[in-house]
Amino acid sequence: MQQLQEAKLAMREMQHITFEQKQQALQNISQALLNNLDFICKENAKDIQFAKDIGLSPAMIDRLLLSKERITNMAHDVKKVIALEDPIGEVVREINHTNGMRIEQVRVPLGVIGIIYESRPNVTVDIATLCLKTNNVCVLKGGKEAVHSNRALITVMKEAVGNIVPAHCIQLLETTKREDIDVLITSNDYIDVVIPRGGAGLIQHVVNHATVPVIETGAGVCHLYVDCEADVGKALAIAINGKVQRPSVCNALETILVHQEIAATYLPKLKTALDAYDTTIYGDKITQQYILCEKATTQNYATEYGDCTVNIKVVTSINQAIDHIYQYSTKHSDCIVSANKETCDLFLQSVDSACVYANASTRFSDGGQFGFGAEIGISTQKLHARGPLGLREITSCKYKIYGDGQIRN
Amino acid sequence: MQQLQEAKLAMREMQHITFEQKQQALQNISQALLNNLDFICKENAKDIQFAKDIGLSPAMIDRLLLSKERITNMAHDVKKVIALEDPIGEVVREINHTNGMRIEQVRVPLGVIGIIYESRPNVTVDIATLCLKTNNVCVLKGGKEAVHSNRALITVMKEAVGNIVPAHCIQLLETTKREDIDVLITSNDYIDVVIPRGGAGLIQHVVNHATVPVIETGAGVCHLYVDCEADVGKALAIAINGKVQRPSVCNALETILVHQEIAATYLPKLKTALDAYDTTIYGDKITQQYILCEKATTQNYATEYGDCTVNIKVVTSINQAIDHIYQYSTKHSDCIVSANKETCDLFLQSVDSACVYANASTRFSDGGQFGFGAEIGISTQKLHARGPLGLREITSCKYKIYGDGQIRN
Repeated sequence: MQQLQEAKLAMREMQHITFEQKQQALQNISQALLNNLDFICKENAKDIQFAKDIGLSPAMIDRLLLSKERITNMAHDVKKVIALEDPIGEVVREINHTNGMRIEQVRVPLGVIGIIYESRPNVTVDIATLCLKTNNVCVLKGGKEAVHSNRALITVMKEAVGNIVPAHCIQLLETTKREDIDVLITSNDYIDVVIPRGGAGLIQHVVNHATVPVIETGAGVCHLYVDCEADVGKALAIAINGKVQRPSVCNALETILVHQEIAATYLPKLKTALDAYDTTIYGDKITQQYILCEKATTQNYATEYGDCTVNIKVVTSINQAIDHIYQYSTKHSDCIVSANKETCDLFLQSVDSACVYANASTRFSDGGQFGFGAEIGISTQKLHARGPLGLREITSCKYKIYGDGQIRN
Repeated sequence: MQQLQEAKLAMREMQHITFEQKQQALQNISQALLNNLDFICKENAKDIQFAKDIGLSPAMIDRLLLSKERITNMAHDVKKVIALEDPIGEVVREINHTNGMRIEQVRVPLGVIGIIYESRPNVTVDIATLCLKTNNVCVLKGGKEAVHSNRALITVMKEAVGNIVPAHCIQLLETTKREDIDVLITSNDYIDVVIPRGGAGLIQHVVNHATVPVIETGAGVCHLYVDCEADVGKALAIAINGKVQRPSVCNALETILVHQEIAATYLPKLKTALDAYDTTIYGDKITQQYILCEKATTQNYATEYGDCTVNIKVVTSINQAIDHIYQYSTKHSDCIVSANKETCDLFLQSVDSACVYANASTRFSDGGQFGFGAEIGISTQKLHARGPLGLREITSCKYKIYGDGQIRN
């Protein structure tokens, strides 16, 4: 594919782009977005019209929409990327060999990053600017619903940076064919890493078919365990915040595990609080003894709802809670509420997830909240990067060895 | 597969194994190897006999052989692993949220590591002990030639650690079926990472068929670029060391690129030096004007010889050398010899390989030489770990968040 070759060539040039050049290119992007509000809105209107024509839901249409205010916010977000520290060139480790060689482990770009994502066009600018800040080349494959918006945004960005960095450092893959995606995720000679962002179907397809290394993101079946020594007020606040504040996101809760000794106190209050948000509750048999709810199945426990639906299960011990989490968690974010520090430590140590919380909402699993300034996604795998992906997480390292003629004995 | 389920259960227990327990288990392994010299040699003799029966080469048979001295060395190597610092539990980063939450990024085991490797049975002990030291569970799939030796070593090790750590934390997959390997590399629910160690065919099969994340190791088409400002003596020493000292290993040289301005001086001397080791030389047309050698093809440039064969090509500039490296390097180790610091820096910056050398032999790309004490392999991919894989490279991180009831606005 011609575009992948161009991306690889751009990657070589990107090795030599300086901090000052990157900052200037990002400034230009921010300004160009503001200068092209009308053009971007006009192109976005085509996507919106198409979305209406094919009967997409109002929520989906809202996700697609680029108002002048939203574009202005995007320009502002680029300024935040400018303010971030540059991870490239950082000396991560220095080793002095007894023979006099100096070995430096240095942070470098990953190279060419393929990103496959759905709907929201602001992601296009987010990712392009984070990649630019880290000397990476990005090959973006957006959703077909956003084709005009993405094309407009990429055109504006490429024009803005063309005099400073290689124009091909931002690539938009305009295709609606699944085979083209499969070329992208199997082009090991051209693509260094592929990051799928989107629904479970997309992510699973990429994981199953990619030969290029993948950073898996997203799926979040997150748990709250309310211990017998939990502060009931905190356990209620964290449950409600986790479930209903923004149920569509991956760090929202799906299942609440409640210790049997606190169930009688906690469950009726939880039910009242959840009812205020019209939440559908699936409970196990014991939960049904305390509150009115649907019967939960194993299928429920494995589902990422993305809406105001929640599972509740009463457990006899923290170990049973941990067992349940091992069985159903997608290793994204899981939480314990307990006033007992040792119990909290046991939970944090035992649960094998990217983010494990003691007495705080899983909704904090987010690059912005972690102080990374921006985020490419949330990794749920253990290789390379786990949890929110900030700038550092889209870099690699290489060893530079400085010798004076040393050879090995 | 029953064994993978056992591995996953052992992985949960391994989260709680302390530093002292790991050290004791490793001590026991070291001692048990010494206590079982006769048993291990007897089992190894079966593999050696089989190897002779099927007519394996003497070099291959030597790789398989476990003498008492070699086993004693293995026991000594375990002591070296004991002496290494424990990376697990290290707080990599600490973030204090303005709302009072403390976010700790902590180093944790990868979990269950599948390792597929060929022939040499000492690798079995190396990997098992490095995984044990990092609280990882390993599922080992050794070569069929070493089946008795590996079974003996695993039996001895499991007996030695059984009272201290979960016995299933070291697993040997005894199968000769390729389908079983394919189960291993697609069991995402049970295996966190798979590391293939061996020939190009094995590695390619794993990369193409795995859905489990892979750390790709090994293939080394390594380059030396002799700049016009090279010290000829150093450039000769580094070329000879890189090519002939141990040509079978992945950090050995395959191709020497020589700047045209130094070719007349350097090439005849290089030829004389290489001839002393009966080296076969493939050269481009210009090289053939200086020295007697076979004509090099693009196929030659892409081949990892593993023996005393080398390609030589004359280039007009450092940029042409870098172009050649981009085209043919497997991104393992590449070297420049030049007295000009700026030229060296350009090379180190431009060449996109795990280890880039200025004036030192590529043969130093090795965990031991880098001070890691031991090595699982050398990664040639950019994701997760690049270059020699020491203890730190077989760990992951997770975020532990300590709150006091915080919820997100």
